[in-house]
Amino acid sequence: MIWAHKDLIGIQDLGKDDIENIFDVATSFKEISTREIKKIPPLRGKTVVLLFYEPSTRTRMSFEIAAKRLSADTIALSASGSSFEKGETILDAARNIMAMAPDCIVIRYPYAGSPKLLARALPCSIINAGDGFHEHPTQALLDIYSMREHFGYIDGLNVLIVGDIMHSRVARSNVYGLKKFGANVTLVAPKTLLPLGTDEWGVDVCTEFDSVIPDADVIMMVRIQKERMQQRFFSDEREYAFFYGLDKSRVEQMKEGAIIMHPGPLNRGVEITYDATESARSVILNQVENGLAIRMALLYLFLGGGKRVD
Amino acid sequence: MIWAHKDLIGIQDLGKDDIENIFDVATSFKEISTREIKKIPPLRGKTVVLLFYEPSTRTRMSFEIAAKRLSADTIALSASGSSFEKGETILDAARNIMAMAPDCIVIRYPYAGSPKLLARALPCSIINAGDGFHEHPTQALLDIYSMREHFGYIDGLNVLIVGDIMHSRVARSNVYGLKKFGANVTLVAPKTLLPLGTDEWGVDVCTEFDSVIPDADVIMMVRIQKERMQQRFFSDEREYAFFYGLDKSRVEQMKEGAIIMHPGPLNRGVEITYDATESARSVILNQVENGLAIRMALLYLFLGGGKRVD
Amino acid sequence: MIWAHKDLIGIQDLGKDDIENIFDVATSFKEISTREIKKIPPLRGKTVVLLFYEPSTRTRMSFEIAAKRLSADTIALSASGSSFEKGETILDAARNIMAMAPDCIVIRYPYAGSPKLLARALPCSIINAGDGFHEHPTQALLDIYSMREHFGYIDGLNVLIVGDIMHSRVARSNVYGLKKFGANVTLVAPKTLLPLGTDEWGVDVCTEFDSVIPDADVIMMVRIQKERMQQRFFSDEREYAFFYGLDKSRVEQMKEGAIIMHPGPLNRGVEITYDATESARSVILNQVENGLAIRMALLYLFLGGGKRVD
Repeated sequence: MIWAHKDLIGIQDLGKDDIENIFDVATSFKEISTREIKKIPPLRGKTVVLLFYEPSTRTRMSFEIAAKRLSADTIALSASGSSFEKGETILDAARNIMAMAPDCIVIRYPYAGSPKLLARALPCSIINAGDGFHEHPTQALLDIYSMREHFGYIDGLNVLIVGDIMHSRVARSNVYGLKKFGANVTLVAPKTLLPLGTDEWGVDVCTEFDSVIPDADVIMMVRIQKERMQQRFFSDEREYAFFYGLDKSRVEQMKEGAIIMHPGPLNRGVEITYDATESARSVILNQVENGLAIRMALLYLFLGGGKRVD
Repeated sequence: MIWAHKDLIGIQDLGKDDIENIFDVATSFKEISTREIKKIPPLRGKTVVLLFYEPSTRTRMSFEIAAKRLSADTIALSASGSSFEKGETILDAARNIMAMAPDCIVIRYPYAGSPKLLARALPCSIINAGDGFHEHPTQALLDIYSMREHFGYIDGLNVLIVGDIMHSRVARSNVYGLKKFGANVTLVAPKTLLPLGTDEWGVDVCTEFDSVIPDADVIMMVRIQKERMQQRFFSDEREYAFFYGLDKSRVEQMKEGAIIMHPGPLNRGVEITYDATESARSVILNQVENGLAIRMALLYLFLGGGKRVD
Repeated sequence: MIWAHKDLIGIQDLGKDDIENIFDVATSFKEISTREIKKIPPLRGKTVVLLFYEPSTRTRMSFEIAAKRLSADTIALSASGSSFEKGETILDAARNIMAMAPDCIVIRYPYAGSPKLLARALPCSIINAGDGFHEHPTQALLDIYSMREHFGYIDGLNVLIVGDIMHSRVARSNVYGLKKFGANVTLVAPKTLLPLGTDEWGVDVCTEFDSVIPDADVIMMVRIQKERMQQRFFSDEREYAFFYGLDKSRVEQMKEGAIIMHPGPLNRGVEITYDATESARSVILNQVENGLAIRMALLYLFLGGGKRVD
């Protein structure tokens, strides 16, 4: 297997074959986390820098565990307690990091475009762990992998992405990836939370959640960021939950075999209720589990582990 | 040696035999920290998550070094810079962590009961590193181990626990443990800092520190949390130190062979003075050293290392 | 090779031979960071504690990567999220850390003298990563190493150190080191940013930057700390940049072969412009790269790796 990419900036940069490669490697790695000794040596002596300018538990932890299970060394840098507070630019910071010869920088940044900037400027692999409202490619990969794991295929699946689409890099990356695999994607949100230009995304748009539930194979709920509520994108949490929350009655309208997804962290009682997360339809924790396998696969492929297999 | 427990929530859950098992393993591990190469391989490929919702240096560091000396991988998560800030519940956070298949979660949490909640919900080992005013079992284990190391026995020792008993999970865990081994425990504090219900603990209670010093084998000082002073549990630091601080004149009243303990961090000049901490009676730094050995023993036993020895 | 020092507190404590030893080991380690597998085993089973009471990216990261490339375990402690917040003294904190038997404590502290205090009190190696306005010896070592790498010698080099000398431990450590090797050092700064007593340093002092540029072999810019601006050490950033900033026109006045250095992080547009940092004269990123090699060498020598080679 040959892996030709230096960086992972967005799903848009990957071909369908690339994604299938990633999925195959991830599948072989899923088994490792079930072993007594959860560690293999392919990235021994490699250094992975985790450069997180935004709070994150699961994504940072997922990358950190992924790197360690492959025997890489990790260095975690967060915005607080660092010289980024002293006014250093992201590019200067990254060039400094580069001078210490890491093999990969995993970056989360509050503004779109920074991972691409770094990818152009630095010789090491850059993996985008979320940049502003742009992309969150590793989340989309794990989401699509989780769908394929459940259904065995993606082509023709009816996927609803519900919630704050405008501010969601998760939604954007999922749309790009799902379209490559032939899924029918419908964005469900109040108009104030839909971005401009979705007519070029090749998706349907709908403001009436209830009308599209019965045909959906996948309902992917997107997080409502409470900190944006005062900006009046919608009236209040209760009203939002009434129109767009996934609760017991909506779960009951779902067709047989349909699944519930959420990238986390959950705002219980707002976009999703306990009935939904605890239902047998929920694959939310499978997503997290698959996220680890996907990130192991990405580190393996981008850091040259892939060159060693045929 | 068989280790039957999945979790360590409180001293109350351990039998005397269990504690002696832990002590035996700790003794064998103490020697490792004196070696040139301070590392042994029994937990290679195991993942220990350190989930600390409250500030901690020594406990977190002690667990982290313990895990690394046994060759486990560690992931440290603290409340700041994490999605806990985004309003995720502790249970949701923990289930997400669990999906990445750690072998153990060491948790410190500001409210009592959370470690037990996680222990019930998750298949991995949960070790309580302090939950609210409830228990801090690893501290009690290292304290009792340090007493046994000094005296050779616990049965019949007169132990004073002095200070803010009400808010102290350290005091509570020590009482539970010391009673199992037959020590005579006396709580010494102003009435405002004594919790209700101590008559069920099987201990003596005393408000006159000086009257009980001459008979004590162990004086364990408990930290006064300065942040609680404005709540008027006592008049001021000086008055508190006058009645309950361990200073030079009180140290001189102690009987031959009696020792001074403190779980740290020290409020010098409040509950304890330099004369006390620097006296030959002080075993405060032995406590820290033994803490590392105890935590190595606990990780070893709870993570299955114990199955490998007979 | 014999290494006789227990601690690295300041450049003043090192002989010229010591520094040349460090440089030789650093040179042999530079190559490791260019390998596919960037890891060697000499410090396996050693524990390095990184105790940073001030924000730092590059220094902390440099030490952390250095330790990991030599297979040591690292524990990072920062002031926030630790019991230092609970009012523990630095000495108590360090004695607690010592009880866990680390092999080395790398410390950055806002006040001068603390590393020395720890060095006297503790049996493990203390490496000063910057203490107040006192010294930052590892920075000076990497700076002098970088000069020697470029010119092949230090003796007789004309070195300008330009900027906020008063508050700069970097400047101080460099002066001490450069004098040992026979460099001619000129401090360039407005009088308000020059410390008292520089006449005992064996350096020239100059307030007219432009007058000394043509003869300089090395122009080392020192960071202006914006947070000090309101204290009126100078009028404003623009005026400072006009008189003391290294910009295009000043770079053009430099003599052939002369180089530009900066310890980072950069205040672009204040003490240095893009023209200067991006010019072929800049060795700023070489400094960072050499910093990693220097810190690997220091950890190797101070942690006993040096005993194993002849």
